[in-house]
Amino acid sequence: VTAPGFTGSSLDRADALREDSTALETARADPRAKLLRLDGLEPEIDGDGRLLWDDLSAAPAGAELVLLGLEAGEPRFAAWHPDAPPGARSPALFHKLGLMPFGEASTYAGARSVLDWLTRHRFCANCGRPAEIFRAGWGRKCPSCGAQHFPRTDPVVIMVAEHRGRALLGRQPMFPPGRYSALAGYLEPGESIEEAVAREIREEAGIRVRDVRYVASQPWPFPSALMIACVARAENDDIRIDSRELEDAMWVDREGVRRALADDPAAPFLPPPPYAIARTLLTAWAEGA
Amino acid sequence: VTAPGFTGSSLDRADALREDSTALETARADPRAKLLRLDGLEPEIDGDGRLLWDDLSAAPAGAELVLLGLEAGEPRFAAWHPDAPPGARSPALFHKLGLMPFGEASTYAGARSVLDWLTRHRFCANCGRPAEIFRAGWGRKCPSCGAQHFPRTDPVVIMVAEHRGRALLGRQPMFPPGRYSALAGYLEPGESIEEAVAREIREEAGIRVRDVRYVASQPWPFPSALMIACVARAENDDIRIDSRELEDAMWVDREGVRRALADDPAAPFLPPPPYAIARTLLTAWAEGA
Repeated sequence: VTAPGFTGSSLDRADALREDSTALETARADPRAKLLRLDGLEPEIDGDGRLLWDDLSAAPAGAELVLLGLEAGEPRFAAWHPDAPPGARSPALFHKLGLMPFGEASTYAGARSVLDWLTRHRFCANCGRPAEIFRAGWGRKCPSCGAQHFPRTDPVVIMVAEHRGRALLGRQPMFPPGRYSALAGYLEPGESIEEAVAREIREEAGIRVRDVRYVASQPWPFPSALMIACVARAENDDIRIDSRELEDAMWVDREGVRRALADDPAAPFLPPPPYAIARTLLTAWAEGA
Repeated sequence: VTAPGFTGSSLDRADALREDSTALETARADPRAKLLRLDGLEPEIDGDGRLLWDDLSAAPAGAELVLLGLEAGEPRFAAWHPDAPPGARSPALFHKLGLMPFGEASTYAGARSVLDWLTRHRFCANCGRPAEIFRAGWGRKCPSCGAQHFPRTDPVVIMVAEHRGRALLGRQPMFPPGRYSALAGYLEPGESIEEAVAREIREEAGIRVRDVRYVASQPWPFPSALMIACVARAENDDIRIDSRELEDAMWVDREGVRRALADDPAAPFLPPPPYAIARTLLTAWAEGA
């Protein structure tokens, strides 16, 4: 399996620095320190799709500096401002993602998820009071009740069920015209990955599966999912879709999937973009996974 | 790999019922409906380690009924009360878990995680106002700002690094005397499973790894982790522990791990309990994974 999108950041997260106020102060004073350039939560990139970085002096007044990590020993930050709106998803954003090397998109993914989490979790869920940022941006703590809160990452299972050489693909109403992809859904408290895969396929398409096998994973920063890609063996092929989740679902053989991945005009569907792990998963399946 | 602890619940989560107020009303009025018997958040079990269930009339006044799912079509609920304290972990709790079949512990895990989440997330993290329960207990929504919040599940990677036939095991200060286990840590926003495994082993023990392979997963309801078990190939064996995380770490060969799993008094360490996926992982590794 090739490395999925949003993986391969060159940053060392330098977790030990986050709680070391002296080391943090030194990092902020380091003349080599850089600040991720963002337009709201959208990345700013150069002609090679690489992220742009400014001196720390570019941070707006009142911003908190979030330590993203170290690039070959040099500190890298992002700025969070209390006036920041929650993250949006525009067609321009996804166009940019398509231009970025996966490692650059990986650095962006971590930054975006933690900044957006800071925006959407300003208050203590335990007592309702304003919560303060700590750990260089990687958490909030409540000065009233003492609760600590950490950025959440929501596991999502995404999977291909196989039946007699065909893969089960589905289409959500919000997809671009013609696109089909692997089914997906949030894992719930009390479930294993394997159980979530079986439940989601049964709920969304009426297909029972066994022999769930893990394939690959990726972060997906909209807002902060961990995508866990699997394949499974289907025990039936009579699709009954849950129309609250899917607009359509169908079985596609390996030749059909290969044609879609090759942008063949005769393909039975349009595939997900390269940075989506659904693409990684379909590629692995088409090659025999 | 055998099924890990906390997996195999016989309940159908019946997600479609959660948002269907008529169906929920019917489920609550069903004379076959049952309520999970808990002592605070601790399970009440019979002599076979099976969960005990009461009639719905046993729910205390002012409690919210959380729909756990359907057992062969019969509704199963748990009661959440606004006076509930956050979940604690007692030796008695872990003793009980050791007596429970994994499928029963799985039902308990989902119930405990969602009840404890309701207790620890009463307020809207977006605006600080009290948030209301919806989706039959599987979420809160804010009547002030409209934000919806869902029970969180925190991915944790747990892994064995292998070097020349030996597994890297570590010991946290809070472990019972003699116990060693697989290293573990929370996955962060912007990371894949494979990247989190490599970072945690490097941070905690100074070991660099490659070839991360997924083995199994389990829910861990303290308070709501998804444990993701992996093996990886170590590139060095000179351990340097992070004493904030570990009290000790060591390399153990397959014979040593087999002795520990067999409760051999000559084993080099005491193993984790059967319901912990660390045990599943060590067993798989000892058998050649």
